[in-house]
Amino acid sequence: MEVTLTDMTADCSAAKAAARTMATAPIENRNGALAAIAELLSSEVENILAANAEDLADERARDLSPALVDRLTLSRQRVEAMAAGVLEVASLEDPIGEILDSRTLQNGLDLKKVRVPLGVVAVVYEARPNVTIDCAALTIKSGNSILLRGSSYAERSNGALARVVREALESAGLPADGVVLSTGGGREALGGLATQDGLIDLLIPRGGEGLKNALKAVATVPVLYAAAGNCHVYVHSEADLEKARSITVNAKVSRPGVCNAAETLLVDQEVAAALLPKVLAELAAAGVELVGDEQVLENAGDTEVKVATDEDWDTEFLDLKLAVAVVDDLDQAVEHINRHGSGHSDAIVTESEQAARVFMDDVDAAAVYVNASTRFTDGFEFGMGAEIGVSTQKLHARGPVGLRELTTSKYMVRGDGQIRE
Amino acid sequence: MEVTLTDMTADCSAAKAAARTMATAPIENRNGALAAIAELLSSEVENILAANAEDLADERARDLSPALVDRLTLSRQRVEAMAAGVLEVASLEDPIGEILDSRTLQNGLDLKKVRVPLGVVAVVYEARPNVTIDCAALTIKSGNSILLRGSSYAERSNGALARVVREALESAGLPADGVVLSTGGGREALGGLATQDGLIDLLIPRGGEGLKNALKAVATVPVLYAAAGNCHVYVHSEADLEKARSITVNAKVSRPGVCNAAETLLVDQEVAAALLPKVLAELAAAGVELVGDEQVLENAGDTEVKVATDEDWDTEFLDLKLAVAVVDDLDQAVEHINRHGSGHSDAIVTESEQAARVFMDDVDAAAVYVNASTRFTDGFEFGMGAEIGVSTQKLHARGPVGLRELTTSKYMVRGDGQIRE
Repeated sequence: MEVTLTDMTADCSAAKAAARTMATAPIENRNGALAAIAELLSSEVENILAANAEDLADERARDLSPALVDRLTLSRQRVEAMAAGVLEVASLEDPIGEILDSRTLQNGLDLKKVRVPLGVVAVVYEARPNVTIDCAALTIKSGNSILLRGSSYAERSNGALARVVREALESAGLPADGVVLSTGGGREALGGLATQDGLIDLLIPRGGEGLKNALKAVATVPVLYAAAGNCHVYVHSEADLEKARSITVNAKVSRPGVCNAAETLLVDQEVAAALLPKVLAELAAAGVELVGDEQVLENAGDTEVKVATDEDWDTEFLDLKLAVAVVDDLDQAVEHINRHGSGHSDAIVTESEQAARVFMDDVDAAAVYVNASTRFTDGFEFGMGAEIGVSTQKLHARGPVGLRELTTSKYMVRGDGQIRE
Repeated sequence: MEVTLTDMTADCSAAKAAARTMATAPIENRNGALAAIAELLSSEVENILAANAEDLADERARDLSPALVDRLTLSRQRVEAMAAGVLEVASLEDPIGEILDSRTLQNGLDLKKVRVPLGVVAVVYEARPNVTIDCAALTIKSGNSILLRGSSYAERSNGALARVVREALESAGLPADGVVLSTGGGREALGGLATQDGLIDLLIPRGGEGLKNALKAVATVPVLYAAAGNCHVYVHSEADLEKARSITVNAKVSRPGVCNAAETLLVDQEVAAALLPKVLAELAAAGVELVGDEQVLENAGDTEVKVATDEDWDTEFLDLKLAVAVVDDLDQAVEHINRHGSGHSDAIVTESEQAARVFMDDVDAAAVYVNASTRFTDGFEFGMGAEIGVSTQKLHARGPVGLRELTTSKYMVRGDGQIRE
């Protein structure tokens, strides 16, 4: 069953046609749709789990690693968690209609800059059915239509979940095409999606570097790339070494496979001898593979540290592996981070207000931390309620992408006949 | 004298190296540099005019149309106007450091979202020397470095102006490389500029469609495109016809060569007979070539109106030419605008609050007007003090691009040892 470009255009056109209604729907209807999704997830849970069981029983699923099978698998508890997440989004403040700027010009024109939906958001994602619900909830709340392009491994699960969402939209008086699930056609269909200028207002890829690179080569619609997270912890000469130890271990070990985990530890030479033996031993005990420069090896005590390659400083390991370097001072630390980092999240551990200020001003990243773990960069942790990813771009959205980042603005200007000289 | 990629990389690297100092420079220094530019423009005016005279005397300048020669020509008065513009920018509010969001999380983390400079902005522009000063002033004020890439026709003028700016930066304690003028290499050098990932944070082309298309094919750095302005005036059935006449004529005739000029007039069928004969006669008398649909031709009276082609509805004439159509109702007008418009500026003339609201909500454009000319979409008119162009993108910046649009944000998070569970 192949998806031709015409099918993709038809899917995108359907979402676009619904966008005008979605954009002006009262918040009561949008929240009503979210409440209906939560209810239907509960009442339809048997159908959803049955569809998921079919995906899991498909012989193609045998190719998946245990970790991927786990991500694909739904359970009663996981469906309940999805419903709770949707209600959480419903409880958030409406981002639409916010007046971003307002003034009366000298000629009497009343100028307002108003927050409005983007239109149609497309999300391409891997075999994680919960993304279907998470993303649909965020786009419905923010007045957008969404074109969902999930993995074929999760086709039946996504289908069951998309049916729930579309039924919920209709029950709330909104067009079902506010959420369109595009299926079939394999990765080639991506090119068809990424070139729908005028129909897709924003494309968000949620997946690995392969997906991103495939899109970069062909996309003509606006794309928000969530780049890699090569995050750093820098222990300053005036650090509290107990905080330094605790933050370093947490930033590396608590969840090494995510983008806000630390990949490099930088230690000021003044505290290297005092900090390194203890923290390296603790990291090694937690199963972390360590690579370091010469000064680190000298201060490693009994812990095994391999010699770091040039490449290690630029690598997002996404694993229990950490690169460690000793730096001369704050300035060298900032230079290292700005040269090798990915502009995601970087932390300094220091009791010096002066050093904290320089680090926060000069490190060029979406999030800079003083005396806290890099692991907090996350829409939920930041109090945004939910997120669709973390942007390391500087344009439009930097950091967690929540409801506001799914909007644009429009100048609304009212006059009574004004013309320009 | 060819610019190799290495030269371009050297130019961009110089601007990037200065960016860290520019970004954290106190507002006193940034405004001090602007004041110094204004002074030096005055004291160096003879040198500037001499350099400009050389550009104009160059045999290559013979290829230029009279309009382009006019844009290239500097005079004492025009240099004074540039200086006044710089002081105007100095008087604007500092966009940097603004707290966009602030909260204390439950775990005690102090979270602030702060407005910060982008880093290095590159501007590619045509043979208009004043752009050198206008853009440098905006980027200095917003804490950015700038890489200026002007036309070779204006090379000597731009060189004299860039020297003024660099001297002003140094006199204010800022690095001269906060403003770098890149010259030589012809249009091929553009590709070298547009692929400086990691050095150029934003590229803004100021020029025609040819320049934009050349960049679209090669750019890997973020680009802000100022798209075409296919702007509409829609006269609703409940319009004040005198306002309709005045706004239509102003939107078309006052300056037909700019992006906020109207290109299409839509007239509700209920008022076509009452409005069209008079307004078409006035437009024709002002030298406007008119094309229209069948119903327009029927209501044209003595005025000559040619039959509009399908293409006319999609064309930004940038000239004394207007496409005119009669529409059934508000809904058809909105459909027409959203299908054919470029999302720049569109106006409704109506005394109906209900119609005004629907139009403003449903027309998908950077600026929507009620009872006012589309010609007001402009950074100066909007009270932003200055602009570097008008964006029709939905991401990052929509509408006039002023100081705020030359910034990004950074999350600054302070803790006292917080780690994530």
